[in-house]
Amino acid sequence: MKEKESLRVPASPRTTLRSSASLRSTSPRVGTQAAILAIGSEMLGPMRLDTNSQWLSARLEEVGISVVHKAIVGDDVEAIGDELSHASRRASFLVTTGGLGPTADDVTVSAVARWSGAAVVRNEEFLVRMRARFERRGFRMPLTNEKQADFLVGAQVLENPRGTAPGFWMRTDDFELVLLPGVPSEMREIMESSVLPRLRERSGGVVSRRRVLRIAGMGESAVEERIAAVYEKWKEHPVTILASPGEVQLHLCVRAEPGHAEETVARMEQDFGEVLAGRVFGRDDEDLPATVGRLLRDSGQTVSLAESCTGGMVSSLLTDTPGSSAYFRGSVVAYADSVKEEMLGVSAETLKKHGAVSGETALEMAEGVRAHFDTDLAAAVTGIAGPDGGTPEKPVGTVWYALAQRNQEGVAKRRAFGGDRSIVRRAASLYALELLRRRLVGDPRA
Amino acid sequence: MKEKESLRVPASPRTTLRSSASLRSTSPRVGTQAAILAIGSEMLGPMRLDTNSQWLSARLEEVGISVVHKAIVGDDVEAIGDELSHASRRASFLVTTGGLGPTADDVTVSAVARWSGAAVVRNEEFLVRMRARFERRGFRMPLTNEKQADFLVGAQVLENPRGTAPGFWMRTDDFELVLLPGVPSEMREIMESSVLPRLRERSGGVVSRRRVLRIAGMGESAVEERIAAVYEKWKEHPVTILASPGEVQLHLCVRAEPGHAEETVARMEQDFGEVLAGRVFGRDDEDLPATVGRLLRDSGQTVSLAESCTGGMVSSLLTDTPGSSAYFRGSVVAYADSVKEEMLGVSAETLKKHGAVSGETALEMAEGVRAHFDTDLAAAVTGIAGPDGGTPEKPVGTVWYALAQRNQEGVAKRRAFGGDRSIVRRAASLYALELLRRRLVGDPRA
Repeated sequence: MKEKESLRVPASPRTTLRSSASLRSTSPRVGTQAAILAIGSEMLGPMRLDTNSQWLSARLEEVGISVVHKAIVGDDVEAIGDELSHASRRASFLVTTGGLGPTADDVTVSAVARWSGAAVVRNEEFLVRMRARFERRGFRMPLTNEKQADFLVGAQVLENPRGTAPGFWMRTDDFELVLLPGVPSEMREIMESSVLPRLRERSGGVVSRRRVLRIAGMGESAVEERIAAVYEKWKEHPVTILASPGEVQLHLCVRAEPGHAEETVARMEQDFGEVLAGRVFGRDDEDLPATVGRLLRDSGQTVSLAESCTGGMVSSLLTDTPGSSAYFRGSVVAYADSVKEEMLGVSAETLKKHGAVSGETALEMAEGVRAHFDTDLAAAVTGIAGPDGGTPEKPVGTVWYALAQRNQEGVAKRRAFGGDRSIVRRAASLYALELLRRRLVGDPRA
Repeated sequence: MKEKESLRVPASPRTTLRSSASLRSTSPRVGTQAAILAIGSEMLGPMRLDTNSQWLSARLEEVGISVVHKAIVGDDVEAIGDELSHASRRASFLVTTGGLGPTADDVTVSAVARWSGAAVVRNEEFLVRMRARFERRGFRMPLTNEKQADFLVGAQVLENPRGTAPGFWMRTDDFELVLLPGVPSEMREIMESSVLPRLRERSGGVVSRRRVLRIAGMGESAVEERIAAVYEKWKEHPVTILASPGEVQLHLCVRAEPGHAEETVARMEQDFGEVLAGRVFGRDDEDLPATVGRLLRDSGQTVSLAESCTGGMVSSLLTDTPGSSAYFRGSVVAYADSVKEEMLGVSAETLKKHGAVSGETALEMAEGVRAHFDTDLAAAVTGIAGPDGGTPEKPVGTVWYALAQRNQEGVAKRRAFGGDRSIVRRAASLYALELLRRRLVGDPRA
């Protein structure tokens, strides 16, 4: 699915930056066209993919800034200078990631200094704070880290609460440069706390509003069919369908003045939500484990799991969410049939008669774990993840589920997943969570 | 986590291209430094990641060509021209992907024509073949597809067996340009069938051999310290250290004639392996779960797990590997303390006296799961993944491990991990597997 129209949007008007004591006193014009430069030789080789720039695109888009150029360059002062020159011809705002670390090949600061003519001065106060930081963790700061206190004169320092490398924000009359570390968590933290708030302030007119509607337990083409008419109705705004194992996402995007963008995206969300009738489990960053967690917490219920083919992945997904101990008590990963019998109380007869991959076994697993862990709800998964173990009646990708609930009769359900072992495991795990979600919202399809 | 020295590799000798009737009759010198340009506005937005260039880097490296620059540009004739000029200053060989499709925003051919001054001529013979192709599938060819028969004069056409868009190979005296479609399967097919064989021929022998040494349970700086002398010894070959939560990788890369490259990389591996004395758990694609699986399988032993803070992730990692049912019997995810007591037999007294995050509790968890699941080995993990739950004595990131083994006394071990919840969980999970690995190879540090 190719996103069209992205370059046909009229450019937003340039606004003038509010001046700030910590910044150069020029009054630069602010660009709505940005470039991103990822610095690090490892990303030129086959082993590392630059994923930072994708995240940056999303966040810049939200504040009305379009990315018109992305590049990756190695840890080389001259090559970085070349890229800075090139980027400054293409855009008025550049974000770089990487090369701010302590080692010899971290050369972003010196490359920017050489390119811009700015001086570099060691900040003794920062050095003291860095040393203290190391000491608190019981280490002596290695000498190599000292260079991270080399600051670009004239640039604003962007604090890094998660690491030693600070970021920098430099501006000249017609070009702005934000230097961020390459470690994703540090890069994101600095963007969120120090960069985006200021960009949001000055975006003035046009912004982008994106709403992501997230759907599980339904294939991409089924979603496409369901939304066809609404998709046609809203065709002047880009709608993207993205599918990954076990999940389909609809991205609705509107570029307009803030109020109008907000309102339009809300109307789009309503239209799409209507035709998808209850299939949307969450929006934007709310993933399925978080949704299930919220529903469990809100209803004061607890859950336990019995997993076979997913091997602990459902539990791992559910406990990714902070605070999951409020509703998740635990699980039994019953990979061997003997464990299904001894730890979950599945009867030998059921296993013999119906096999480990059957609705009967799934039901006894779910009832067993619910009773042992004394939870309100329980889900069980048993299937064939492959590549081996398939039969003509139960091919690879066959998965049986069961839900057990206090004082209610259990239900079992069969699904078939395509793809290799890792795809089957992931899709099968998410579907277990989707079944729990449906049960929690009273959907009859669970 | 940076690639060292990668730009200090001496360039391999340039070879002269064999002439070919279908090519321009100049005898261009062949570059060993390449650039990659991904063309498509969708990759500048937040929804699409360019993964083609990573694949291209790997394949180019194999034929002795290093990628020194990567960029992404939108579907815009002028912007593409800018990027071509920039790339031609940075490298002598450029591969572009994307923009060869039938729609209005596919402008790669016209951009290259305008930039290079080459004419574009519609190839009537190709048009007939395209129409026939559509007809065989029962469709009439849309008019928009006709532009895919617009060929660059002077460029060699690269057949596309998987789609309508052909590729092109253009050369001038000092620059070569290979245009490929953006659909990954088509791009790969054309590279494999029409581009790589020729590059391999003219590489005149020089190839790259890469060996990845993988290390767990040791920090990046500890690895760096340990290998310093060997690193210095082999400094003419690029060695990259890449760190991710719970794992450090050393990438050794040698560019030379095939036999020599093979031999050198083997000698490097031996030298680095020696100073890392047993810390290398696997090489190349062998991950830690697969290594542990292999050791268990080879020794005919079974394993079970008791997980608290990792919430099923250790089990999920271990069962990622196909065939894991041969040695993994299952696990108990004991998130709630009551589950630790009831399912694993941890005593209420231990929990009260030492807390859930303690060596004593870990030991009882490991002994409990080993006995219940009747396995040869068992590992237990209990800790504080955060963001809440930390105390001054047991801050977030504190994790206790225990190993239990049939007829042996159990051992417990404490580790402290930095980072956010997801980093702690992943690093803590991998360390559990590393402890199992050490025990299985008889390492006294487990």
